[in-house]
Amino acid sequence: MTFELTKEYLEHIQLAIEERDETTLRADMAELYPADISSILYELEPDRAHYLLNLLDQQVGADILANLDPAVRLDLLETFSSAELAPLINEMDSDDAVDILNEQPIRIREEVIALLEDREQARFILDLLHYDEDVAGGLMQKELVKINVNLTVNACIEEIRDQTEDVEKVYSVYVVDDADVLLGLVSLKRIVLARRNAKIADIYTRDILFVETYRPVEEVAEIMQRYDLDAIPVVNVQGRLLGQITIDDVVDVITEQADEDIQAISGLSGEVEEDDNIWARSRVQLPWLVAGAVGSLLAATVINGFQSQLSKIAALAAFIPIIGSTGGNVGIQTASLIVQSLADTSGLSTTLSQRLLRAFLVAIINGLVVGLMAGTYTFLIGEPRLFWVVGLSLLAVVMLASFMGTITPLLLNRIGINPAVASGPFITTANDLIGIGVYFTIAELLLAEV
Amino acid sequence: MTFELTKEYLEHIQLAIEERDETTLRADMAELYPADISSILYELEPDRAHYLLNLLDQQVGADILANLDPAVRLDLLETFSSAELAPLINEMDSDDAVDILNEQPIRIREEVIALLEDREQARFILDLLHYDEDVAGGLMQKELVKINVNLTVNACIEEIRDQTEDVEKVYSVYVVDDADVLLGLVSLKRIVLARRNAKIADIYTRDILFVETYRPVEEVAEIMQRYDLDAIPVVNVQGRLLGQITIDDVVDVITEQADEDIQAISGLSGEVEEDDNIWARSRVQLPWLVAGAVGSLLAATVINGFQSQLSKIAALAAFIPIIGSTGGNVGIQTASLIVQSLADTSGLSTTLSQRLLRAFLVAIINGLVVGLMAGTYTFLIGEPRLFWVVGLSLLAVVMLASFMGTITPLLLNRIGINPAVASGPFITTANDLIGIGVYFTIAELLLAEV
Repeated sequence: MTFELTKEYLEHIQLAIEERDETTLRADMAELYPADISSILYELEPDRAHYLLNLLDQQVGADILANLDPAVRLDLLETFSSAELAPLINEMDSDDAVDILNEQPIRIREEVIALLEDREQARFILDLLHYDEDVAGGLMQKELVKINVNLTVNACIEEIRDQTEDVEKVYSVYVVDDADVLLGLVSLKRIVLARRNAKIADIYTRDILFVETYRPVEEVAEIMQRYDLDAIPVVNVQGRLLGQITIDDVVDVITEQADEDIQAISGLSGEVEEDDNIWARSRVQLPWLVAGAVGSLLAATVINGFQSQLSKIAALAAFIPIIGSTGGNVGIQTASLIVQSLADTSGLSTTLSQRLLRAFLVAIINGLVVGLMAGTYTFLIGEPRLFWVVGLSLLAVVMLASFMGTITPLLLNRIGINPAVASGPFITTANDLIGIGVYFTIAELLLAEV
Repeated sequence: MTFELTKEYLEHIQLAIEERDETTLRADMAELYPADISSILYELEPDRAHYLLNLLDQQVGADILANLDPAVRLDLLETFSSAELAPLINEMDSDDAVDILNEQPIRIREEVIALLEDREQARFILDLLHYDEDVAGGLMQKELVKINVNLTVNACIEEIRDQTEDVEKVYSVYVVDDADVLLGLVSLKRIVLARRNAKIADIYTRDILFVETYRPVEEVAEIMQRYDLDAIPVVNVQGRLLGQITIDDVVDVITEQADEDIQAISGLSGEVEEDDNIWARSRVQLPWLVAGAVGSLLAATVINGFQSQLSKIAALAAFIPIIGSTGGNVGIQTASLIVQSLADTSGLSTTLSQRLLRAFLVAIINGLVVGLMAGTYTFLIGEPRLFWVVGLSLLAVVMLASFMGTITPLLLNRIGINPAVASGPFITTANDLIGIGVYFTIAELLLAEV
């Protein structure tokens, strides 16, 4: 039932664009949802995408543009004049309009705003341009339906009729006083069921959840998810109703956050897609690879300092991989658990000493298991004198990596860096280096002959 | 504005529970949202949580139970008799009721269903128990508002009045024919604004999106996100309307998926929280640690086979860490990009050969950079004869790791395993092992004297 883009269909569209076959294109596009047309635009050259977009109904074009991937949108809009862009911006929800204008150079931004036919939309956009994109103000849209508390249901229905021209989906009607201060809301269901002459004051719900403009978007997402809200009103410090944030925008925030975390853990220093060009991919992969290489070369320097011991007991080298990878794996696991617990704000927060104690106890169990495994292996390769060196080193490495995995994300979080970075190559490399140091030091202490 | 649980407040509640001070507890709980009461329940012993839950309004209690963490809920419900559970299940949306009953032993499940006062709810639950939890049928709720296409707006409002007793949030009214086949929907906004004697047939929206009961939940989440839907109707193969899936359930699916991915990448073999007991944590961490250790001990066996070369050129050991960690890092990065591209179903899908070619080209750039870095380092430590060995090995390792990182998630995905596993310790260890093999083989080939 849902649309899937095939190569054949894409070729058919490409051909129709080449032949400027407006009839075919209009008929084809009329059968698709905006999101499906987007998937076609992704595969077209910017000027062809431009041609296709211009054939569409303006509301549909605005919808598509609002939901396009920002990188693709940037390329596409380079082919648009301000006069072509303005009518599309006119049709959008104010939050989407601001997102797009913020990507454009100031000159174009100002031209487009000046060209907007809907002066209310222009005012909305100017209001929203103040806010950072990572606070509630930057996520909200100005479009909403509100009603004065002193009116009746009948008047409310008329208000809805007037105000919903602009409002795509109505979640509920916000109730305000004469100074526009948010008092509560009435659900549409309630309005449908109420007597026409009932007073809003008698039927509205007080004590509703709201957020202030300066709340971080992650907090807004958390609140909407925790309380299962479809929309949340945004107010200023005086409690005046300024806008609302809808669940679809929050779903995007949640998805983006998850992507960022996975990126950080995977050691990608920025957003990139698998099918981006090879330079873009390399640019995003190299920073952590180089950082990792520097760490490993430091480890190499440590190992090199023990050359004489290595030439006497070559088997010492055999355990370098297990020391390095166990430290790395434990570090990632522990850091991930901490990152997860930082995201969960329900319940009491844990103190640092509680966290460290738990990490320490888990590390003893895990360290003993892995240490015994590797210790047993020393017998298998006929190097029993390495039993204690390898076993104790692994126990120490697991404990150190657990400590680092606990402390690093907490520190990063405190200084405002995404703590998931601590699960990435950074911690792996650091643990690798520490592990090697511990291993050779223990070897030197325990093996009299080296 | 939002509630945050403090230690003092928790102690106050604990004391009130001990003293069986119902007045205080009822007054305190009346001021909180269900989600906030949940955060208190998380911190209480099961029998105290039971006592508190029983003091609440049944609808609130049902809400809380529906949204509790399953592990906590399981402990809590062990203190409930079937007769105590039934009235709560009675008040829930059918999808939540089924989730809870599915966690219970069959005997309790059947007792509770037999005890339900609302026989419609019992029928709903029996219907839903058929479905797996990972398909649309397992995510849907039976509660919805539907109307026959031949009725008027006035009749529709009466239907809403009758049907919404059970329905918490009304997203839209589904329009069906006499055989209950889904035809379309009417938004509440449209109903509010329509004339009371207008016919539904004249105002409803046709061609709406729906899903069949057997669609995987990931697909449902993707569709609702792509098309910005608040709810989607679920139909059977004959097109009969069976239920609906609402956005809050899908948000949970999206969050769970992201958590699962991060878990897989971090090498945690199952769900666990940072503050779970140390045995639970160890059980989840150990499988991949042990698997990693086995891999590293295989690498140790390889290194051990080159003992004589190592005793002659001890500096060879110094490069073991960079070979291992570079392979691991490149593998994770590449696998993550592939996993990400698998999740993105818009646009044309890429062929395997296109993917491999891109991975190959990026690997050449990255391999040359890291190889040159390590090559330069051989001069710094006075071992220039290792330049080509180390440089070429790293180039080869980066290329092999890119290949593995591309192919493994695709294979896992094909056989139905979460491809994010390929970014975890599995691929890291595999690359570590392969890297060591390549390194010593190249060393043997290039260094005549070893």
